[in-house]
Amino acid sequence: MKALEEKIRREGQALPGNILRVGSFLNQQIDCDFMMEIGREIARLYEGYGVDRILTVEASGIAIALAAGAAMHKPCVFAKKYRTGNVAGETYQTTVHSFTHGNDYQMVVAKEYLPVGERVLLVDDFLANGAALEGLLEIVRQAGAQAVGAAVAIEKGFQDGGARLRGTGIRVESLAIVESMDEGRILFRAQD
Amino acid sequence: MKALEEKIRREGQALPGNILRVGSFLNQQIDCDFMMEIGREIARLYEGYGVDRILTVEASGIAIALAAGAAMHKPCVFAKKYRTGNVAGETYQTTVHSFTHGNDYQMVVAKEYLPVGERVLLVDDFLANGAALEGLLEIVRQAGAQAVGAAVAIEKGFQDGGARLRGTGIRVESLAIVESMDEGRILFRAQD
Repeated sequence: MKALEEKIRREGQALPGNILRVGSFLNQQIDCDFMMEIGREIARLYEGYGVDRILTVEASGIAIALAAGAAMHKPCVFAKKYRTGNVAGETYQTTVHSFTHGNDYQMVVAKEYLPVGERVLLVDDFLANGAALEGLLEIVRQAGAQAVGAAVAIEKGFQDGGARLRGTGIRVESLAIVESMDEGRILFRAQD
Repeated sequence: MKALEEKIRREGQALPGNILRVGSFLNQQIDCDFMMEIGREIARLYEGYGVDRILTVEASGIAIALAAGAAMHKPCVFAKKYRTGNVAGETYQTTVHSFTHGNDYQMVVAKEYLPVGERVLLVDDFLANGAALEGLLEIVRQAGAQAVGAAVAIEKGFQDGGARLRGTGIRVESLAIVESMDEGRILFRAQD
């Protein structure tokens, strides 16, 4: 998505430790019109896939999931994060390691919001090491639903999450893939 | 907003302890088309107020803030919640008590995303004791910005947050006000 690459070039900040700061439009501050455009692009990419619902994880996945759901006229669901081990109630849950915070959390979805047999599109703002999307895939598996694919705004192509996920056979669409960000210079992978 | 009252009647669950469960369309699972309709209603209520940006707090405020921002073609910003005391960096922050979780958290917004002098609309999914909106008001005050009003989807009219906030002179719009929910029967306050 050219508009996203341009926005990252213009507003993104490549910080030491391979941190890409896009808080001015994607998370913390959200450019709402642009976010809805991202949602329409995700809807276009998965048109004809029979998506029944969007699944993401709080907090920064919520905006992009709503934008995609509004464009597809489908509901979205967000997994909650808990620090504690077992969460009470009728839930699907799995343990996910957060590389950002250096700890584990429980990713939890109420069973009633993920019906058996449904076709689910996974959505998130970032794909780096892939832990969050792998957690969502595990939740979908527990539910007996079917993951038709994943869509993220920004993939860090120099981390291994994207390659590992695609290796499982699932379709992964990243609207922008950052190939490298050495010395503050952001380069994108060419996509069709 | 009649459509919201009907949705609450149809899908909401009044649980013991005055808990109103609306996870099937407002939080956790989101009816995306309906959420965008809520956003348009908020835009209608604050038309002509010269709103520059929407401010909310993660996680469940994000969806309604994006919906309102998309309808108003304005950016939204969400405050982050931290358990720890002082958060590093150039931020505005205040301590908020969570009645839901029975603890305090730090509500934090990066200074760059809340410019001095801007006209800010506060948005959240729920208004009960008012602690979250009061925290957002304090952040706006620190920023030297101006809160033009607040908009929430559901107000619990039997808790004191709404009255206390309105008592400060700020305009508060609640799309549905639950007056009582005794024995599982949900009654709404009549509004113009």
